Amino acid sequence: MKVLIKDNEVLNDLLGYEGLKIIQEPGRFNFSLDSTLLAHFVTLRKDSKKILDLCTGNAPIPLMLTLRTEGEIVGVEIQPDSADQAKRSVLINGLEDQIKIIKGDLNQLHSHFAPKSFDVVTCNPPYFKVDQKSNLNKNDALTIARHEVMATLDDVVRSAAYFLRPGGRFAMVHRPDRLVEIIETFKKYQLEPKRLRFIYPRVSKEANGFLIEGVFGGKACGLRLLPPLVVYEGETAHYTHEILDIFNMRKNVKKEEIIKKE
Amino acid sequence: MKVLIKDNEVLNDLLGYEGLKIIQEPGRFNFSLDSTLLAHFVTLRKDSKKILDLCTGNAPIPLMLTLRTEGEIVGVEIQPDSADQAKRSVLINGLEDQIKIIKGDLNQLHSHFAPKSFDVVTCNPPYFKVDQKSNLNKNDALTIARHEVMATLDDVVRSAAYFLRPGGRFAMVHRPDRLVEIIETFKKYQLEPKRLRFIYPRVSKEANGFLIEGVFGGKACGLRLLPPLVVYEGETAHYTHEILDIFNMRKNVKKEEIIKKE
Repeated sequence: MKVLIKDNEVLNDLLGYEGLKIIQEPGRFNFSLDSTLLAHFVTLRKDSKKILDLCTGNAPIPLMLTLRTEGEIVGVEIQPDSADQAKRSVLINGLEDQIKIIKGDLNQLHSHFAPKSFDVVTCNPPYFKVDQKSNLNKNDALTIARHEVMATLDDVVRSAAYFLRPGGRFAMVHRPDRLVEIIETFKKYQLEPKRLRFIYPRVSKEANGFLIEGVFGGKACGLRLLPPLVVYEGETAHYTHEILDIFNMRKNVKKEEIIKKE
Repeated sequence: MKVLIKDNEVLNDLLGYEGLKIIQEPGRFNFSLDSTLLAHFVTLRKDSKKILDLCTGNAPIPLMLTLRTEGEIVGVEIQPDSADQAKRSVLINGLEDQIKIIKGDLNQLHSHFAPKSFDVVTCNPPYFKVDQKSNLNKNDALTIARHEVMATLDDVVRSAAYFLRPGGRFAMVHRPDRLVEIIETFKKYQLEPKRLRFIYPRVSKEANGFLIEGVFGGKACGLRLLPPLVVYEGETAHYTHEILDIFNMRKNVKKEEIIKKE
């Protein structure tokens, strides 16, 4: 099957080993370290049969999750161009039996799916609030990906809780300055935070992001603060071993086996 | 002046350089790394004139804070023996002009102080909830220091907020599994979390504690997640340089000067 790549697009590698490809558009929102860390962070179990990725963009998270699960993955994206790139990326990787892309608004998803119908929800949402006085171009693709123009934090968390079965998990990546608000919003929608991991660019620096996972209807106990996720080694420009291991995520290969082979 | 040290007590060094001493009682609650980290963490400014330490025990935090501030420090302790040890430790160090110890219940402090009368409040509180079915001896000194027999998290945070002036700061050390509840309780009493620092025993391990500071009546923005505070170097039994620097806290000497001298 031949899949069209448009003049304004490029076909990039996604991660190291498995030959995953992703269609991207320079100048548009490209897949980020944050998405990769989220795809690696989220808890997936044998009974994680149905996974929903909100704000999926060009679908980096669904594509990467295929390395970790046989489950069915749905990606939802409101921007037509991004959703179209996501669909073609799925086809290029021959993953159309596992990943379904929906172009749509996460606030209108109840017309597509029943409540409580997913085991896992992921989201790398827009990070920044929209200041009413700002001069943002609210139709710009990059603005929509980065700012809460089309979906607010509350929209994202409410949708996640709505579509999760009791005991299902919602994992998100976000910025430190919104940690308090995020914990409050999780609690508001009965998502009990169970795992938190802070992302430090260097061991000597303040965190610039965090990963959070909550259980829908979970008990208010047992929160774990996972080891610090440090991106760069010391003061160098080299990634830490852990980040390199994450880039080397492989299908059905456990981390220990990769280390032995190298 | 001669200060009595009882047969069941010992006189220990507190930190490295400045000759601070503390009366302790083996088998009772001794001053901990957590108290030291909190005394180092809390923000103190030139206008931090009045400081309140709740659950002060034998007063390690007030004693250490004298290395960082000229302000007046009040320590409150409900257990008579601990409060008495605290008072004698203050005398031994000749700090009776700067530190005042009150034996009393933090829920009854309004008879001692006016609301909004402190610039800074600190607390290393009891960490563990009291399970109604447990067999705890609720009169045991160690139990009272570790479990919420005499004061709950809500009591501590409510008291801190009550005695802080607007813009004043409350700093606390606590356990990861209560992070969500602590953030909720801070918000309940208008203490906006502004600084969070996670304590990892090793860089490869989950956090086993955290330091949090909130501003009374502060705006809900600008939370900083400070660099990871790692206790041990690699997989060794040696403290990291940062922990050693904290143990070497000195009066009116900036950290950079200590490093130069070594």
